[in-house]
Amino acid sequence: MNPNTNLKTYSLKEVPYYKLHGRTDTTQYPLPLFWNGSAIEVNVTGTELWIDIDVDFDFHEPWVGTSIDGAVMSRQMLMPGSYSICLFRNMTQEPVKNVRFFRELQAMSEDNACHVLIRGFQTDGEFSPVADKPIKLEFIGDSITSGEGTYGAKGDYPWITMFMSSSKHYATMTGEALNADIRLISQGGWGVLCGWDNDPRHSIPTRYEAICGLAEGEFNEQLGAQKPNPFDQWQPDAVIVNLGTNDASAFEQPAFTVPETGEVFKQRKNEDGSFNTEDVARFEKAVVDFLYMLRRNNPNSHIVWTYGMLGYNLSLPIAHAVSTYRAETGDNKAYFLQLPNTTEETIGSRFHPGVKSHERASKVLIEYLQELLQIPQ
Amino acid sequence: MNPNTNLKTYSLKEVPYYKLHGRTDTTQYPLPLFWNGSAIEVNVTGTELWIDIDVDFDFHEPWVGTSIDGAVMSRQMLMPGSYSICLFRNMTQEPVKNVRFFRELQAMSEDNACHVLIRGFQTDGEFSPVADKPIKLEFIGDSITSGEGTYGAKGDYPWITMFMSSSKHYATMTGEALNADIRLISQGGWGVLCGWDNDPRHSIPTRYEAICGLAEGEFNEQLGAQKPNPFDQWQPDAVIVNLGTNDASAFEQPAFTVPETGEVFKQRKNEDGSFNTEDVARFEKAVVDFLYMLRRNNPNSHIVWTYGMLGYNLSLPIAHAVSTYRAETGDNKAYFLQLPNTTEETIGSRFHPGVKSHERASKVLIEYLQELLQIPQ
Amino acid sequence: MNPNTNLKTYSLKEVPYYKLHGRTDTTQYPLPLFWNGSAIEVNVTGTELWIDIDVDFDFHEPWVGTSIDGAVMSRQMLMPGSYSICLFRNMTQEPVKNVRFFRELQAMSEDNACHVLIRGFQTDGEFSPVADKPIKLEFIGDSITSGEGTYGAKGDYPWITMFMSSSKHYATMTGEALNADIRLISQGGWGVLCGWDNDPRHSIPTRYEAICGLAEGEFNEQLGAQKPNPFDQWQPDAVIVNLGTNDASAFEQPAFTVPETGEVFKQRKNEDGSFNTEDVARFEKAVVDFLYMLRRNNPNSHIVWTYGMLGYNLSLPIAHAVSTYRAETGDNKAYFLQLPNTTEETIGSRFHPGVKSHERASKVLIEYLQELLQIPQ
Amino acid sequence: MNPNTNLKTYSLKEVPYYKLHGRTDTTQYPLPLFWNGSAIEVNVTGTELWIDIDVDFDFHEPWVGTSIDGAVMSRQMLMPGSYSICLFRNMTQEPVKNVRFFRELQAMSEDNACHVLIRGFQTDGEFSPVADKPIKLEFIGDSITSGEGTYGAKGDYPWITMFMSSSKHYATMTGEALNADIRLISQGGWGVLCGWDNDPRHSIPTRYEAICGLAEGEFNEQLGAQKPNPFDQWQPDAVIVNLGTNDASAFEQPAFTVPETGEVFKQRKNEDGSFNTEDVARFEKAVVDFLYMLRRNNPNSHIVWTYGMLGYNLSLPIAHAVSTYRAETGDNKAYFLQLPNTTEETIGSRFHPGVKSHERASKVLIEYLQELLQIPQ
Repeated sequence: MNPNTNLKTYSLKEVPYYKLHGRTDTTQYPLPLFWNGSAIEVNVTGTELWIDIDVDFDFHEPWVGTSIDGAVMSRQMLMPGSYSICLFRNMTQEPVKNVRFFRELQAMSEDNACHVLIRGFQTDGEFSPVADKPIKLEFIGDSITSGEGTYGAKGDYPWITMFMSSSKHYATMTGEALNADIRLISQGGWGVLCGWDNDPRHSIPTRYEAICGLAEGEFNEQLGAQKPNPFDQWQPDAVIVNLGTNDASAFEQPAFTVPETGEVFKQRKNEDGSFNTEDVARFEKAVVDFLYMLRRNNPNSHIVWTYGMLGYNLSLPIAHAVSTYRAETGDNKAYFLQLPNTTEETIGSRFHPGVKSHERASKVLIEYLQELLQIPQ
Repeated sequence: MNPNTNLKTYSLKEVPYYKLHGRTDTTQYPLPLFWNGSAIEVNVTGTELWIDIDVDFDFHEPWVGTSIDGAVMSRQMLMPGSYSICLFRNMTQEPVKNVRFFRELQAMSEDNACHVLIRGFQTDGEFSPVADKPIKLEFIGDSITSGEGTYGAKGDYPWITMFMSSSKHYATMTGEALNADIRLISQGGWGVLCGWDNDPRHSIPTRYEAICGLAEGEFNEQLGAQKPNPFDQWQPDAVIVNLGTNDASAFEQPAFTVPETGEVFKQRKNEDGSFNTEDVARFEKAVVDFLYMLRRNNPNSHIVWTYGMLGYNLSLPIAHAVSTYRAETGDNKAYFLQLPNTTEETIGSRFHPGVKSHERASKVLIEYLQELLQIPQ
Repeated sequence: MNPNTNLKTYSLKEVPYYKLHGRTDTTQYPLPLFWNGSAIEVNVTGTELWIDIDVDFDFHEPWVGTSIDGAVMSRQMLMPGSYSICLFRNMTQEPVKNVRFFRELQAMSEDNACHVLIRGFQTDGEFSPVADKPIKLEFIGDSITSGEGTYGAKGDYPWITMFMSSSKHYATMTGEALNADIRLISQGGWGVLCGWDNDPRHSIPTRYEAICGLAEGEFNEQLGAQKPNPFDQWQPDAVIVNLGTNDASAFEQPAFTVPETGEVFKQRKNEDGSFNTEDVARFEKAVVDFLYMLRRNNPNSHIVWTYGMLGYNLSLPIAHAVSTYRAETGDNKAYFLQLPNTTEETIGSRFHPGVKSHERASKVLIEYLQELLQIPQ
Repeated sequence: MNPNTNLKTYSLKEVPYYKLHGRTDTTQYPLPLFWNGSAIEVNVTGTELWIDIDVDFDFHEPWVGTSIDGAVMSRQMLMPGSYSICLFRNMTQEPVKNVRFFRELQAMSEDNACHVLIRGFQTDGEFSPVADKPIKLEFIGDSITSGEGTYGAKGDYPWITMFMSSSKHYATMTGEALNADIRLISQGGWGVLCGWDNDPRHSIPTRYEAICGLAEGEFNEQLGAQKPNPFDQWQPDAVIVNLGTNDASAFEQPAFTVPETGEVFKQRKNEDGSFNTEDVARFEKAVVDFLYMLRRNNPNSHIVWTYGMLGYNLSLPIAHAVSTYRAETGDNKAYFLQLPNTTEETIGSRFHPGVKSHERASKVLIEYLQELLQIPQ
């Protein structure tokens, strides 16, 4: 290999211009990418660019991807260590290249050691500013929003990080179509009230107000994960919630006993197979409560509760809860939108929505947001 | 023209086998086709087939179409008179041809003289039985379900019968995909509570229980239009309601004064542009009431209230009303399904859903019904 | 029916503005529409428009269609007689409506009595000029270009006029995409050298130079069919030939004996199943000769020989013949373009290309002509 | 990171079952992957799999990808060194995983140091046999077949390895659709007679008969690149040639002087812009000669010369040459097939066919080969 002797190393503190995607604690160095879709984006001249990162995990290895000028170029597994990855080589010196280094893997509540930290860059080029997009969208969800099933063969089932992504993803597609910056807040298996297995601790609202409330343990705390999220610094034009799928599953699953407390939790079904009215009511209350929380933190945002990519079972309770919230508050900027269910033709790995399902869902969502946000088509 | 001397004329009473589509009074002769999608279907050998019909109207001429072996062959305007139309010629004698003569135009509440009556057939072939499809679907709607906009150029606006159809239509597409017999009950401009212009007389529920309650006047009465519909003779597996679009419009339109009574009707908006709570409530009540009526007449059918092809404004009230109905009755076979909104890309004439919009909506509905009715894909 | 008392009848001679599509003898009254795609087009205000026509045939009835503002509204069989057809009713008086009355059926070499003649119009509106399109395209072909298979169910096989069209057709799609006026010259079963059954009389080049050389018999002669076509009055930007399919078929069929002369004709195969070299050579000579004829009559047109929609068997001989013609003449404006073969997925009735096949072929052709004619996309 | 202590290292010599894709010298250890699409494929149980490789290059770094059970999981740049890459982790132990490690980058005639060598695997699973596919296809081409433009943003132009692939590629799509094993032989900028810049050394036929004749230098020679390819060990059902694009370009470019010999080479144009007849003739001779060479080495294969994805300029000469070859030899298993040109809508980076263009081309090719090879659809 012919060495490039013109590379200069920049600590992130020395990089004059870069743009961050996804919630993080911007006071940290090295800087953590907590969520899937979290990314660092630079505009840079030069023939070559490297990124310097720190990576570790106990079990669930992170995956990352890169894009150049908006086109995804690579996707790979990261091994532990402090090392550098080449993002491009042999480009023409002059033109500005737009480069994004993004996290494919969700924040990993089940592996406190899992992290990707950015130390800086090496390049023979010069950095220039990266503009914000005119629109901001926040997506809050579960495994669908963690992109489970967007990679991997139909029929492959293991719950592994390789099968999750932010790259082949309805939120990413929506952001690109609407020229919007996006943030993802999601965790596979979690719900509004409880997780898929009735675990009441696995509720997204309980973690929503910290930077990355899902990332537990001492190391994540040092990274700033549990700090209050500075909502005023990034107010989305629309918050898209895509939760309810695991809450629906909980009705089908056995009771869960919380190990720490012995609390037993169960969303019940009636003998005729329908959902128990009281348990539907407490689900609806959780939806209403979350809407209050979202409004408190996002005072002027449209809030669109989407649902349906893995079944329509809780459509009516969710719509009812949105109606209740609107009636209680007079807040007319909360909505309900069904997304097309996943079919045999559109399914991916892990019986989850595949790329085609994400494409269909994003199309409905794009059209909805174009009208809601009055974006010229 | 070389004459076919082998043609034999059959009064409808003499036709040994035929199948009717759409509600009608089967005791009538000649037999009326009231609704769009109403049709007579025959299986017949022979080289040639003609249909003998009576047609009239004051202003709004009816359109009809024919299909051979499931493929649409013709579509044409009908002029007044008692005459014959050739459905095929020069076919091979032996094989059985499946022929459907169908009405493109909705029942016409604004033209009491408008009618298409069937007298019989002429053919040199033999009739054989036409089997029922394994599934039955009833669609209840407004201009969308009357196919307004499915013909005609984008930008053409007159409200004329030429632009309405049952042939390029989400219900027809759904029926074909699911191998189902379908019935359409629809009227452009009408709603659940009131019409697009706040006319409280233009409510589909008020006419639902007669054979063709929309077809008024003495002549239609003689044709049996106002007789109670014999629901027990055709029970659908699913009733698909697609109403609410005109109810949403009413909020935007001025008050309507009923000429006969002087009653003034108006669905009101608040000063901030939102819908008046009381008026939303009476809309919701109309939805709930209609669900009771549908259930009474269709005891075991799934009832799917669909909405969205021309905007999502009443999604939440409709979903709320379905929830209310379910809570009041414990009837778990009522559902809410959003259909994709019509976009610049999918619009047809009259600012109504075009063929592409009907295709998209039918795809969502097909998938929904496949799961609901457990139809193997 | 409420009569429209404002209708005024115009003999064609009195119609101030109209545009003709397709070769015809413009000195005739009433005016014949010989070819499929032949049409009369008017721009007219008013609420209502009728066309007055004369129709007859012995066996093969003609089919016609209408379009309003570019959207196909009707398609129907014509019975013999002198009568009027309503093209629109109840439109708004003022705006100009663009109306096209077009022939679906090819010129019918097998039915000398078959004709559609235009006498005039009735309307309550005013006529205005119809502009020519900036581009002119002539299509010369066989059953593919006669639209056989574009209507009718997959599996239906009779050779009847109902299954032919110009409306769902690659030439029409191409004309619309490129904003071009088009003319069709085609006959099912005919070839460059001979017909599908080795009939050497069924060669398109032998009839190309008359207005409608295929339309035989005394009556057609009176209609001007056999007059020399006035090529100088309509010079296409491109001539698209789509011939060879029946010439390929002839190699598979038994010898044909011309009844009048006793001549026996046969394109032979070798024992190994390949085509006889001498017979391929005379096919190639027929292609070369036709190119000379096309060039003589269309001095500056691009000539694109397309092939492949029903198999690629003669691709190499056709390409070879085009090369030979170019080498002999130095004429570099003759080309060869393969069109996608028809597949199980894209087939229509009569084992002929269906609408999807026409769409695919037109897409390739559109892109080709955009580049050749330097049409901005 | 929790270590997996059950991993066992296998030298490639110890791996009981694996399958190689692409021409290579199977006597080598470590084993080179010369061509894009070259790959090693294993079926293996276990939770984890690593591959041990040796990589180097002077300037043009190789890119590789991995697929699991047929789904592409990763794509990445390789840096120099002898190291291991993890192909999967945390899978369920029992089921057999099908894993392919494939080269994205073409054989690199411009970087003799560029290589990817396979040393072996590490796994906690067991290997099992990988079956051959029922069909074998060989693709011979230029930059199109090297996948230039299949990655990278529209408008990005540098000639870098990142923008080339075998993964988003018409040959790969064709192989998957037809359940075929494929081999690629290609080099960007090369032709049949000469390169895009008139360099007469850049002719694929001159290198076709060695294993990887394009890979020059001492090290590649040691890897077996210049050994005669053992054609008898892998006889394709069809050879698909996709050459001519650079030969067409040569007519537009200035003369080339071969540095070693001073030879000046130029494909000339006439003053009117057409191609010089003699130069077209020597191009055609090169096509004919290559067909002889292909037939000599592939006695029973169908040979399909495809052309058109970047323009149709040499369609007629190529078709003519195929005709000439058939006439000279009586060999009827050589064919010509046009592939759809790349359009504004389907273009990728480097003004080369993008993924959509590869999809369209592969569709035509798939259908062609289904018929030619009589593969049930």
